[in-house]
Amino acid sequence: MNVGSYFSENSKTALKNEPPGAWMPNLPDGCIRLSSGYPDPALIPAEGIKAAVARLLDEEHDLPLHYLGSPRMARLKQQIQRRLAERGICVVEEQLLITSGACQAIDLIARILLDEEAVVAVESPTYMEALEIFQNYTKQIVSIPIDEKGIQTDRLKEMLDERKRKGLTLPRFLYTIPTFQNPTGTTMITERREHLLELSAEFDFLILEDDAYGELSFDKNPPPIKSLDKSGRVLHVGSLSKVVAPGMRIGWITGDSAFIKALEWFKKDLDHPFSQSTMAVYLENTNFEKRLHLLKDVYRAKCAVLLRALEQFLPDSVSWYVPAGGYFVWVRIPGVDTSELLSQSLAEGVSYVPGKYFFLNQKDGTEFLRLSFSYANEKEIMEGIQRLGKVIAPF
Amino acid sequence: MNVGSYFSENSKTALKNEPPGAWMPNLPDGCIRLSSGYPDPALIPAEGIKAAVARLLDEEHDLPLHYLGSPRMARLKQQIQRRLAERGICVVEEQLLITSGACQAIDLIARILLDEEAVVAVESPTYMEALEIFQNYTKQIVSIPIDEKGIQTDRLKEMLDERKRKGLTLPRFLYTIPTFQNPTGTTMITERREHLLELSAEFDFLILEDDAYGELSFDKNPPPIKSLDKSGRVLHVGSLSKVVAPGMRIGWITGDSAFIKALEWFKKDLDHPFSQSTMAVYLENTNFEKRLHLLKDVYRAKCAVLLRALEQFLPDSVSWYVPAGGYFVWVRIPGVDTSELLSQSLAEGVSYVPGKYFFLNQKDGTEFLRLSFSYANEKEIMEGIQRLGKVIAPF
Repeated sequence: MNVGSYFSENSKTALKNEPPGAWMPNLPDGCIRLSSGYPDPALIPAEGIKAAVARLLDEEHDLPLHYLGSPRMARLKQQIQRRLAERGICVVEEQLLITSGACQAIDLIARILLDEEAVVAVESPTYMEALEIFQNYTKQIVSIPIDEKGIQTDRLKEMLDERKRKGLTLPRFLYTIPTFQNPTGTTMITERREHLLELSAEFDFLILEDDAYGELSFDKNPPPIKSLDKSGRVLHVGSLSKVVAPGMRIGWITGDSAFIKALEWFKKDLDHPFSQSTMAVYLENTNFEKRLHLLKDVYRAKCAVLLRALEQFLPDSVSWYVPAGGYFVWVRIPGVDTSELLSQSLAEGVSYVPGKYFFLNQKDGTEFLRLSFSYANEKEIMEGIQRLGKVIAPF
Repeated sequence: MNVGSYFSENSKTALKNEPPGAWMPNLPDGCIRLSSGYPDPALIPAEGIKAAVARLLDEEHDLPLHYLGSPRMARLKQQIQRRLAERGICVVEEQLLITSGACQAIDLIARILLDEEAVVAVESPTYMEALEIFQNYTKQIVSIPIDEKGIQTDRLKEMLDERKRKGLTLPRFLYTIPTFQNPTGTTMITERREHLLELSAEFDFLILEDDAYGELSFDKNPPPIKSLDKSGRVLHVGSLSKVVAPGMRIGWITGDSAFIKALEWFKKDLDHPFSQSTMAVYLENTNFEKRLHLLKDVYRAKCAVLLRALEQFLPDSVSWYVPAGGYFVWVRIPGVDTSELLSQSLAEGVSYVPGKYFFLNQKDGTEFLRLSFSYANEKEIMEGIQRLGKVIAPF
């Protein structure tokens, strides 16, 4: 039996790409994880979740374990609506869909909007899992460079003008992580957010705003693009993975109710009553402002340690963006192929993600690498960068 | 902004179908639920889940709340492998994918196998959510009638022969619920299971075996088709929704490792560490054979009550199949349009699912309805059928 012959044409095409997760190496024991975009283990509220489950099941018994679940699931939506409102995003219930994290959210949006005729625009570099997802639907991906002020909207306009002039299909949507971007850590300035919205109206495309890190500012939070959107062109994706716990798989999409309805249509893992109602109780019991304050303090301090270590242990030729929030620092090592360097680095006991995986054209990323200060503790970060310095020194 | 213009061609086509869940009416207060395929509330192990969470988080702290999750997730796989082995299905790790319930499993399989060129064969009647899922991918669905011995494989052969003779595309797969079928409650006899496997080899199609009810026999369990499959043509889907708790969203797919790899590729809600590791601990702490024994006793008794009530309160012209397990009884009321009758029935305080929703050609289902004995208690079942009798009496 030739298994491959049964796949749909689209699957066959997609399966020719690099497999998902190719960028995540197996780490040797004792390796310091500067590769992982995971939250700090000490900030995962295991006791809070345990208490939430106990309270939930004592109060509601079997209810949260059925298909339809508990009234608390509606309250989770309300809690997320409240948090969004604080950031200037006002949505009603029909404009909000709870998903299993941001990845499912991005996949569902791709599912309803993309086919092989469709063009999607991404930042360069961008979140590799989003690239993987889009490549499952279309080969037509165009990328726009990013700098320390976010996506270069003038370059985007040039590309759009050129495509229009040449009679090429215009992008159906642009995928952006405007705030504390993955992998660069940079934040799009407000002028560019506004310019982006203007362009989306002029050239009639949607904006998929991935705001997974948006609440994790070291100083003040910039306004989400969605909060500036008067036209309903922005689909805003968020997640509790970075601020509570990724293992709970709670994310969401906000957007025009017609989009939300279509997304629900294709969301066939159904609701997750146990996880969603547990999260609702956890949030009810938690002073979230206080929690966010703690998170920002911890990540700000860890980021500072990472930046100090980079100054101290890496050669002067190495450069990086200084992030104002989020989880990541994006580093350039001129003349070095970071994917070739990885095995040495792992042997030395420190991991990172080679830059190439974040680029549509992987050749553009050879000199870059992504470091994460979120998961390792301060001592490990210091030690990890010292190890990385040893690996880089000969170059 | 015209939202509809942004959808992909495939989404536009799919969105023209009847919306998902159209068959599930809003129930008035106090309505006896004979419509819902939910487990018995008293059989949902809320205390067991609570204890499992406490033990899990006490032992592993933050681990099950991260992306990668806990070693217990691998043990959940092993537990499912062990249960499958007891039913004659021997699979290694790479042949098993954990999903968010059976619906996601069916959707993922449809995703990798179907496009608008593909043909899929279903039983008539069949699980309405599966029909909805397939209709999101292709319009080419063919149906084969079922009787009290399961799908009529001779009719299937006729259809296949005819398509071959006419040069029409043959089905890529056949979707079947061979054991305690939803909605008919019937079970495919072993001869037909074997015939089906022969036909799948002769006409080169796959079999998607939905075995959600397979463990809930009143007497003995028939062998899953997968256990008879020597060729790797069967993708077997199972779930803990009917035997533990649907709100945990744990299902699975077993099949050739090349299929499993492709399914993982497109599964973008990622793993569900908290739910999966909680379930692993719950199963570790549970004597599952004993639990199954209890479940069978309860459902056998409730089914008997339902059948007695049907004899007692419904006219002689009404007929049904007597199930040997599962959750459902399939009832025919000659000369009555059950979807027209539903509002009266709800007003009287009892719900059912009109038969038409289970048919590709809804006209074929007007005289049927599906009753579930799983959710309501014995007293409610008796009362519910009495109410139904009142509604039917004038016809």
